Amino acid sequence: MSIYDESLKFHEEKRGKIEVVSRVEVDSSHSMSLAYTPGVAQPCLEIQKDPDKAYIYTRKWNTIAVVSDGTAVLGLGDIGPLASLPVMEGKAVLFKTFGDVDAIPILVDSKDTDEIVDTIVRIAPTFGGINLEDISAPRCFEVEKKLKERLDIPVFHDDQHGTAIVVLAALVNAMKIIKKSSPTLKVIINGAGAAGNSIARLLISSGINNVILCDRKGALYRGMEGRDEEKQSMANVTNPYNIKGTLSDVIKGADVFIGVSAPGVLTKEMVQNMSKDAVVFAMANPTPEIFPEDAQAGGARIIGTGRSDFPNQINNVLAFPGIFRGALDVRAREINEKMKVAAAYAIANSIPEGELNEEYIMPKAFNRDVQMQVAEAVRKAAIDSGAARI
Amino acid sequence: MSIYDESLKFHEEKRGKIEVVSRVEVDSSHSMSLAYTPGVAQPCLEIQKDPDKAYIYTRKWNTIAVVSDGTAVLGLGDIGPLASLPVMEGKAVLFKTFGDVDAIPILVDSKDTDEIVDTIVRIAPTFGGINLEDISAPRCFEVEKKLKERLDIPVFHDDQHGTAIVVLAALVNAMKIIKKSSPTLKVIINGAGAAGNSIARLLISSGINNVILCDRKGALYRGMEGRDEEKQSMANVTNPYNIKGTLSDVIKGADVFIGVSAPGVLTKEMVQNMSKDAVVFAMANPTPEIFPEDAQAGGARIIGTGRSDFPNQINNVLAFPGIFRGALDVRAREINEKMKVAAAYAIANSIPEGELNEEYIMPKAFNRDVQMQVAEAVRKAAIDSGAARI
Repeated sequence: MSIYDESLKFHEEKRGKIEVVSRVEVDSSHSMSLAYTPGVAQPCLEIQKDPDKAYIYTRKWNTIAVVSDGTAVLGLGDIGPLASLPVMEGKAVLFKTFGDVDAIPILVDSKDTDEIVDTIVRIAPTFGGINLEDISAPRCFEVEKKLKERLDIPVFHDDQHGTAIVVLAALVNAMKIIKKSSPTLKVIINGAGAAGNSIARLLISSGINNVILCDRKGALYRGMEGRDEEKQSMANVTNPYNIKGTLSDVIKGADVFIGVSAPGVLTKEMVQNMSKDAVVFAMANPTPEIFPEDAQAGGARIIGTGRSDFPNQINNVLAFPGIFRGALDVRAREINEKMKVAAAYAIANSIPEGELNEEYIMPKAFNRDVQMQVAEAVRKAAIDSGAARI
Repeated sequence: MSIYDESLKFHEEKRGKIEVVSRVEVDSSHSMSLAYTPGVAQPCLEIQKDPDKAYIYTRKWNTIAVVSDGTAVLGLGDIGPLASLPVMEGKAVLFKTFGDVDAIPILVDSKDTDEIVDTIVRIAPTFGGINLEDISAPRCFEVEKKLKERLDIPVFHDDQHGTAIVVLAALVNAMKIIKKSSPTLKVIINGAGAAGNSIARLLISSGINNVILCDRKGALYRGMEGRDEEKQSMANVTNPYNIKGTLSDVIKGADVFIGVSAPGVLTKEMVQNMSKDAVVFAMANPTPEIFPEDAQAGGARIIGTGRSDFPNQINNVLAFPGIFRGALDVRAREINEKMKVAAAYAIANSIPEGELNEEYIMPKAFNRDVQMQVAEAVRKAAIDSGAARI
């Protein structure tokens, strides 16, 4: 039976991968009076006086919304909000399993940016954070930006920032092995969508300056024409030497290739043109930009993919549960670049340096210890950067 | 320690009365592939092809939103959405405890009817039903009406209909004791707000025709002036003999008084003017329209209140969990009058006729058996009335 048929059967048997449970017993007039009327009036009045008390008397402190409009679901594209629900429930499972976070799928039946934003802002009081999921670009940028402006709880688009964090983590460990350092590294990111842009910004935040973003037409550069506003603005912060050309042009001499694009777009010949000890992260799913054996044949020293059946899986499940755990623990107002960089280093440093090798630069995904280290690093960075409220 | 202080301490210790849990284990690449990528793509595609499959492959079938704008919370009034969260979590606890329903608090930060409606309609894909809660009149009528028009899942305002159902249940059993029947019964409902109107409509649906609604000015009647549209429309369906006057006028000769109004508005003298074997349901909370000892002194034979410390507590926790259980089980499109009447009779009939007496007309609230009888009756009524989809 294929994994798809097996999964269908599994979903039919489970009839939902999450559920809401009660944390209290109600089996007498007295317990009812405590959990509900009349006693419940008191926490209500306390919260009315001081809204922050909602973090004490309710589950807001640990509850996030997993929000999608269903427009960019996995590799399936725009399948609509309802059809994305199995993914959102799966995400909620991962949040709970690895981060002890209560995550609630919220499907928004609209493709209008302002409608999506208004809807989320209006229902935000229930939640301590918002995780955006599988919203297509460029809408996702605008939705995230506006929500951040209007809400004082963390808003995090996992497809962008979760991916960026695990890529940076993998790169940090790869650099330890190839003994190259951030200031001299030349990095090509192929795919200038939500994930590619966020990876570029985070690498720059971490001190890697020579980052070149490519889309199907080639490198983004200052002065280019015929690209949208988001790409123009990415050209302004990347590509410091303003080089031009297609992927096969600009990859010459690059130390690192990061693919968040399409199957098979990186050839063995392109890898051969990269610098010595090349690093290739080919993360298109399920078929990568280049298969590991071809990358190796081209001379790459370290190869990662999004898949669990090859070494060095770069999977954002290593990031998002611990990040929200940490952010919620200190009631962070936001998840800022410093918190993301701290999360990436925590993931990287979870592997002792002596154990690192070409086929082991990322910890296994099923490791709650890593998540707790991520959470700790995020808490600290939130406090240091002023994002924490407690 | 007062119940209020005790409840505050209880809430602080619990830090949330509900939580979201995972129903699946994710501890290996294989289990991840089933619950999340890549396997999860298959149920997504099946739902895209046939939206009804969401009831099979996700938790939609058992999940409802408990929606409030925080404008009419308990007796506290307009305390805002966030401050109402302890109540909504408490409601979710009762839904789970007594009906096995997964209920998620959704607080809507708006007082604009259309904004509230649009918000709920947009996030509706996640849910199999909508329970409206603690929304002030007359906004609650409009919100419910518009949501019913736009959604094909049950929309139920518990403050209206849950209350109406338990009142009808109590009345059905009271009639067995006093040996009076629906067609000849004269019923005064004091309080022409959300609950009072819904009670009037449900009593009429059940065959009790002589129902007179009173507000502070007295009986609603056809031809009256200076009352709002909702009250005019209630006057059209109640008060068949179109009698006029204050509560103390129109209560003369009445068989039943139902109070959903204010403390102390029913006097012993008024009860003395009611017919023989008078029934008094004084449900203002926590201080009833008349205390049971005064009603008894006035000659009332059967007395009920909303309180657990007097006999015959009329509490809608007896209704809403079983009603949604039944409606969800058959994927009902709505919760219609027939389903509500069926629920009321199920509650009433849960007490064997031989056990009924003046101080025992309502089953105890902490009784899952009653809920299951309600659910069964609601399923059957949904099927018989064409509201069921399976």
